[in-house]
Order: sequence, then C-alpha cells, then structure tokens
Amino acid sequence: MDELILYTKEVVILNAITEEYALGTHLLVELRKCNHETLVSLEKVKGFMVAAAKHAKATIIDISFHEFNPFGISGMIVIAESHLSIHTWPEYDYAAVDIFTCGDIIKPQDAADFLIEKFECKDPSIVEMKRGLSPQKRPHKAEEDT
Amino acid sequence: MDELILYTKEVVILNAITEEYALGTHLLVELRKCNHETLVSLEKVKGFMVAAAKHAKATIIDISFHEFNPFGISGMIVIAESHLSIHTWPEYDYAAVDIFTCGDIIKPQDAADFLIEKFECKDPSIVEMKRGLSPQKRPHKAEEDT
Repeated sequence: MDELILYTKEVVILNAITEEYALGTHLLVELRKCNHETLVSLEKVKGFMVAAAKHAKATIIDISFHEFNPFGISGMIVIAESHLSIHTWPEYDYAAVDIFTCGDIIKPQDAADFLIEKFECKDPSIVEMKRGLSPQKRPHKAEEDT
Repeated sequence: MDELILYTKEVVILNAITEEYALGTHLLVELRKCNHETLVSLEKVKGFMVAAAKHAKATIIDISFHEFNPFGISGMIVIAESHLSIHTWPEYDYAAVDIFTCGDIIKPQDAADFLIEKFECKDPSIVEMKRGLSPQKRPHKAEEDT
C-alpha cells in the first residue's frame, strides 16, 4: 500500500474534500492541559463522558470504565451509533478521546465541545476521519429487505 | 484552530516525521471487501477481536459486544494498554476497526494484520495516528512518585 507521511499538530479533516460518501464520522480529540483533578476522578471522567454521549443525542448501549494503578482511567461507551472512548494520563494533564458516530442525527462535534469545556482543556485539537468511504451514497443503516 | 484539509484513500501515517514523542499509537483500520458470513456472526467477530488483542500481547480488561437490528455488530475491548473496537456493516462487507495501544510491548500492527487475514479482507487500509504528542519523551506509564 502506498504511504503518505504527514506531520500535523492542530486540526486535520481527512477525506473532507472528496466525491466519496462516508458511513461514519470519527473525531480523534486530543485534550491537552486539562484540569488535573478531573482526570484522576473516575466519577467525573465517567460522568462527563456519559453526559457527552447524551449531549450528542446518542443512544447508550453499554458503559465500561476502569481505573489503573498508579493512575489513569480508560472508558468506553458503546452507542447505537458506534462509540465514545477516553484514556486519561493525569500525570500529563492529558486525555485521548474518540467520538465515532454514524447517521445524520448525532453531532459528534457537540460531544467534543462539551468535553473540552468540562475538562477545562486549554489546548485541544481534533482530527476528523471519515470512515467507510464509498463512491455511492449508502444509508448507514440499511433496510432489512435491501 | 487552523484547519488542514486533505484527501486520502490508502495509507496515512500522521505525525510520523516529527521531533515529538507519543504516548500512544492508534491504528484506524478500514476493512473493505470482507467475508460477509464473518461480519454477521457475533461469535466470529468477537472471537477474532479477542484473539487479535491476545495476538498483539494486550492485557484484556473488559469485553463488550452487541448485535444490532437488522444487522451490524459493535464491539469494544478495553485493554490495559488502551482499546480495540469494531463496527461492522455486513450489508457493505465492511468493518471499521480501531486499535489504540500504548507502551513498547504491544504491536498494534500485528493485531491489524491478524484481523485482515481472519476477516478475509481484500481491500484494507490503515491510518496510523500518534496520540499524546510531546516534545519530551515521557513514559506511557509514570511511576507513582514522579
């Protein structure tokens, strides 16, 4: 496979200028310079992530959050429209968030903005990736008889 | 924030040429033209994902897989080193896989190659993203007293 190597630091939107259609939108959110106390709190991290999913109008299917020793929290929320995830490195005031959604109703950027605010993130950046590209427009949820 | 808009279809390695260090490596794997029967089987999708995590030497913390109506499977595996996820669209013979790992022991590419083989994927592509970049080299897991 061909490789295209690129350095980026701020915001990248991949596959945005294209004649292709996507099944899903995936935001890779880098939350740098967050509130340290928030990043070490399982209750807060979980609460904000669940609230972000609801804020984006996602339908929550399953929630799984875990705290690691000596610190760091990993959390995943399966939604009907794909998933949200977070991994925190409180020692660096950093969290890596993913917001992967499909369909036209969910607004992944709303969830990202919500989390940037709640984590009091002073240096965020977002990469947007389109997933499941196709030259034809395809419903993200096909009918049973198609 | 500045925006850099870029069209890609094959393989992209983001942040590869950089003087910065990363806490994590995140592979966004597009599995096109997969075996249809595999993509509709909850047992197979779950089994291959768990096996991929083990194949990459990840430590599994939690597993959550769900089947949707009329079809499509979402699955997430929390690992001590971050996560794996999958969303299948069997109607398009397509699956979106994420393999997010930290540390030097885990080999995310091994998990990707394993899944490409097991899903009999005839048109894969991978985007590699570095997560948690910093000008300084930082351990992905800090000591308690640092």
